[in-house]
Amino acid sequence: MPINAQILDNPKAERVRRIAELTRSKGRERSGRFLIEGPQSVREAVTWRPDVVQDLYVEVTQALDHPRIISSTLERIVEVSQDATIYVHYCSGDVIRRISPDAQGILAVGNARAMHAEPDDITLGERAHVAAFWQVRDPGNAGTVIRAADAAGCDAVVFVDDCVDPLNPKVIRSTTGSLFHLPVLTMGTDAFFDWCSAHDMAVWAADVYGTAERAPESLPNVLADGEAVSSSKAVLFGNEARGLENGLLERCGRIVSIPLYGKAESLNLGTSAAVMLMSLAMRGYVASC
Amino acid sequence: MPINAQILDNPKAERVRRIAELTRSKGRERSGRFLIEGPQSVREAVTWRPDVVQDLYVEVTQALDHPRIISSTLERIVEVSQDATIYVHYCSGDVIRRISPDAQGILAVGNARAMHAEPDDITLGERAHVAAFWQVRDPGNAGTVIRAADAAGCDAVVFVDDCVDPLNPKVIRSTTGSLFHLPVLTMGTDAFFDWCSAHDMAVWAADVYGTAERAPESLPNVLADGEAVSSSKAVLFGNEARGLENGLLERCGRIVSIPLYGKAESLNLGTSAAVMLMSLAMRGYVASC
Repeated sequence: MPINAQILDNPKAERVRRIAELTRSKGRERSGRFLIEGPQSVREAVTWRPDVVQDLYVEVTQALDHPRIISSTLERIVEVSQDATIYVHYCSGDVIRRISPDAQGILAVGNARAMHAEPDDITLGERAHVAAFWQVRDPGNAGTVIRAADAAGCDAVVFVDDCVDPLNPKVIRSTTGSLFHLPVLTMGTDAFFDWCSAHDMAVWAADVYGTAERAPESLPNVLADGEAVSSSKAVLFGNEARGLENGLLERCGRIVSIPLYGKAESLNLGTSAAVMLMSLAMRGYVASC
Repeated sequence: MPINAQILDNPKAERVRRIAELTRSKGRERSGRFLIEGPQSVREAVTWRPDVVQDLYVEVTQALDHPRIISSTLERIVEVSQDATIYVHYCSGDVIRRISPDAQGILAVGNARAMHAEPDDITLGERAHVAAFWQVRDPGNAGTVIRAADAAGCDAVVFVDDCVDPLNPKVIRSTTGSLFHLPVLTMGTDAFFDWCSAHDMAVWAADVYGTAERAPESLPNVLADGEAVSSSKAVLFGNEARGLENGLLERCGRIVSIPLYGKAESLNLGTSAAVMLMSLAMRGYVASC
């Protein structure tokens, strides 16, 4: 762990400005790097994906003429990063806050290319479970669904068609570290269906309406079918406002809806994904016991 | 539907100031009234609880010398309110925005006392399902869990001990109307356990840790026990940061945890409540078929 002895304390420095630019997509595209904010995300990144983390920026105070990391939580994260070639930079609080108001004393800069996963890189087992999201646009939702897929033990997440950038800092924050726990792929619609077919994965649509020809099956009925639950599959969720287009629904093997028992009209995307993916995971667990 | 012909167009008027004060707890306590913001919440309030709505404030423009409601969505909400004694007030956009930036053209003022539910007011069936939350403090979480309980068809929600005010506008917005779909009670801890006992409801704790003496049971194992699932029960969730205290866990009949299959460390309170309550509802539905 090379530590830069000099403390970054000028919020107006060129280096600081360049890191702050990573909060915007233009800055990320130009530099091929991305920003990880806050203790939880940075800890998970250095623990699970030290290969993608290049630099760590941590807040220090000057005590007895030597710099001291502001909390033991942050000290432990820096310790974990020692095993990898991650450059640690001590910073003043002003510098950290200038880069991001959501840093809580610690930031990391990652290599976007190292983070990028190709479909061929993913090893899928005999009972693969993939969570796929078509045109998810809201960063908070995108993060929440990645976290739900992680909790449900999915093998991968696929962002299909025109989705929010998974390396958007708001997405990363909302995953609470899950972005570094499982591969997140981005694919076009046709490429997604081809990939599923090549891996013998059925595609199930999570949708409340279905098509004129095909009403959705209710999730509890689907859960009662143990064999279907434990077979290889990708569950595809639609856009937060518009759901899934008919053309997409027609390409899916099953259409499954979450029943609503009270008077609520809907569940939001994040909650729907958690209920659907966790139900399938729990049922698969019981079925395999 | 009495309509006040005069348009409220002075954002500095005393009446406007008093309504805006309902966004704060002091304003609500002083007046015994509360604020409902935005088309979705207002529509659900006038549809399901017209008895609690006193006044409707809707944005109009002046067209050909007579006021015109700014959208057909809002017009339909005003029509629904016609069946009840709700006073409709036409307002300028400035007045609506002065009261709340989250109004999207429509606001309602409700009677807090009429909204208040007493435990004895609630009729519980033979298979009662109640969702209870101990010391939930974040308004967004509180709203999300009320929405989840509604979707799962719970008979009531109970906020136990020191929780956020369910009539806080942020809570109401986050329920997306569910606050008006099912009773939301507030009780002290002892009163809650007494009430459950009086109604022969088991209390289950939703908790990942359990106590030193008692490890939690995993939700999928509990779901496999059809009889337990369909029995009368209240599921108690803990505070978003601290969970449930040992003393509370010891008073609960079962302790149930949601398994995590991937590397995610936790689910947030809203997601946990949705997964637990929806799983029980879906399993109960299959068990009763």
